[in-house]
Amino acid sequence: MREIVIGGAQMGPIQKAESRTEVVARMLALLDQAAGAGCDLVVYPELALTTFFPRYWMDDASEIDAWFEAEMPNDATRPLFDRARAHGIAITFGYAEKTPEGRHFNTSILTDRAGAVVGKYRKVHLPGHSEYDPDRAFQHLEKRYFEPGDLGFPVWRNLDAWMGMCICNDRRWPEVYREMGLQGVELVMLGYNTPSVNSQNGAEGLKERLYHSELSMTAGAYQNATWVVGVAKAGDEDGHPLMAGSIIVDPNGYVVARAQTEGDELIVHACDMDACTFGKTTIFDFARHRRIEHYGRITSQTGVVLPE
Amino acid sequence: MREIVIGGAQMGPIQKAESRTEVVARMLALLDQAAGAGCDLVVYPELALTTFFPRYWMDDASEIDAWFEAEMPNDATRPLFDRARAHGIAITFGYAEKTPEGRHFNTSILTDRAGAVVGKYRKVHLPGHSEYDPDRAFQHLEKRYFEPGDLGFPVWRNLDAWMGMCICNDRRWPEVYREMGLQGVELVMLGYNTPSVNSQNGAEGLKERLYHSELSMTAGAYQNATWVVGVAKAGDEDGHPLMAGSIIVDPNGYVVARAQTEGDELIVHACDMDACTFGKTTIFDFARHRRIEHYGRITSQTGVVLPE
Repeated sequence: MREIVIGGAQMGPIQKAESRTEVVARMLALLDQAAGAGCDLVVYPELALTTFFPRYWMDDASEIDAWFEAEMPNDATRPLFDRARAHGIAITFGYAEKTPEGRHFNTSILTDRAGAVVGKYRKVHLPGHSEYDPDRAFQHLEKRYFEPGDLGFPVWRNLDAWMGMCICNDRRWPEVYREMGLQGVELVMLGYNTPSVNSQNGAEGLKERLYHSELSMTAGAYQNATWVVGVAKAGDEDGHPLMAGSIIVDPNGYVVARAQTEGDELIVHACDMDACTFGKTTIFDFARHRRIEHYGRITSQTGVVLPE
Repeated sequence: MREIVIGGAQMGPIQKAESRTEVVARMLALLDQAAGAGCDLVVYPELALTTFFPRYWMDDASEIDAWFEAEMPNDATRPLFDRARAHGIAITFGYAEKTPEGRHFNTSILTDRAGAVVGKYRKVHLPGHSEYDPDRAFQHLEKRYFEPGDLGFPVWRNLDAWMGMCICNDRRWPEVYREMGLQGVELVMLGYNTPSVNSQNGAEGLKERLYHSELSMTAGAYQNATWVVGVAKAGDEDGHPLMAGSIIVDPNGYVVARAQTEGDELIVHACDMDACTFGKTTIFDFARHRRIEHYGRITSQTGVVLPE
C-alpha cells in the first residue's frame, strides 16, 4: 500500500475587492485543518488567489497585469509555502502567471513536502473567447488573457507516486488524461472555476454542469486507472455564481469524497496509489490493447473533417 | 430537426446448441416490433447470431470456423435483410467474419433502408487473451480467434446523418469516439457481450460492470456531442452470465432509454440528430479548442513510458 491522504481544499467565492493577503489567510486555515486531518497533500483550485477575473472585459494592460503573479512564491503567497513546509504537506494551487518575458498563462504548481516547487503546468485547453461577445449572458475571456500552455502534460514523482495536473476545462478532454496515463500517472490534480450556468444556453444550469464535470473526471479516472482530484472555487463572486462539486475519484471511476457546500470546505480521503495497479495491468494495459495505427486523426487534425 | 427513431434490439442469451435460424427468428420478431414502434433504424448486439463462443477454448480449425460467416448475407441471415427492406428499416448487427483469404474478424455491418450494406466495421480493441489462462474464472479468447480490425473507425452518411460503429470493448476507449468525432459523427452504434463478473476479479460484479459500461458511453457521447446506442446480448448462456444495460445516450451524455430485462427487449427513442449541433459548435468545437501539439504520446507510443 502506498497511501497518500489527500485534502481537496475547495474555496468559496473571492470578491473582486478581496486582496491576496485575505485569500491566503483562508488558504492557511484550510491547510491547518488539513494538517489536523493527517493530510499529506492539499489541492487548491484554479486561479486560487483572486476572483475569476476572465469574466471581466479589460483593455488596459496594467489593469490586466494586476491579476497576474510575476514571481512565485511572492510576498503574498510565501506564508502558504512556509506553513506547508512546517506541516510537511505538499500543495498545489493555481494562479495567473506572467513570465519575465511578459507572457501570460493560467498556471498551477506542485510542491513536495519541503515546500519546493517540483512541477509546473500551464493550462492547454482555454475555453471561451478573445473578443467581447454581446451574445453571451456573461463573458468568458480566457482566450484573451492567456496563451495556451506550452508545457504539455508532464508527470512527476512526488510522495512516492506519479502525479500530474490539469486545469478546469482541460478535465473535459480525454486526451488530457490519456497523455498522463501514457506516463503512468496515478494521481491527476485539477482545480476549476466553472460558472453555474452556461453563458450561451441559459437552460443549462447547475445540475447539468455538475453532471458533466463529474462525468468527465470519473471517465478519465476509470479509463486510465488513476486517482483524480477536482477542486472548485465556488459560490457567488460579485453576482456571478460558480458551481462547487469538488470530488475525489478512485481509479475505478467511483467518487469517494464530495464537497457538500459552496464555501471553503476540506474534503479528505486516504488514497492508495497501489489501487491503480489492477486496471493498469488488465483491461487498461495499454501496451497489450491500444491500437495506435487507428488513432491517426487525433494528432493529425485539429477540427472535424467530414467524410467525402 | 433530423429525427431518427432508433430501436435498440437487446437480445437475451443464445445457448451453444441454438442454430442461426432460431436466432434470426428472434431477430425478426424484434424487427417487426420495431416496425410497429415506427423505428427507422434497429441496432442489434455484437456476435448476434451465436452464443459468445470466445469463452470456449478450441484448437480445431473447423470447430472454430463453424462460428464464423463466410459471406453476408447468407442463407441464415437473408430473411433479416429481406424483412428490414420490406419495413424500410436500416439495421446493424455483429457477426464473426471469415474473409475469402481466411482472415477472422469480429465484425459489424450497417445497412440503409433498402437493405444494402453501406458500412462495415471490424473490432479494433480485442479484449482478453490468446492462450488458455488457468488463472481466470473463465476464458475470454478474443485475441485468439480474431485479428484486430483493419478498417479504422469509418463514418458513413445514412438516413441523413453521420453514423459510425464500434464493438463491445471498443466503447471503453476514448480514442474510438474521438476518431469518429473528428469525422463529425452524430450517432455511434455498438453491440456488446460483456460477462457479468470480471474473470480476473470475482469481487467486480454486475453493478460495477454496468457502471463502467454506462460511464464510458455517456462520456463518449458528451465529449463528442454525439448520440450513442449500446446494445447487449445478455442473460445466462450455458451457465455464463452476460450483463444487459442496453442504453440510448443523447449528445449531452444523458441516458434517454434503458433496457429493463436481460432478455430480448426493444428500447426506442426518437433521436434528433440536430441535437448534436450545440455541443459541436461551442464547448467541443474541436477546431477552436483542441491542441494537437500536446497529444503526441497518444499516437507515438502504445504502452506506458514512465518519466525519466
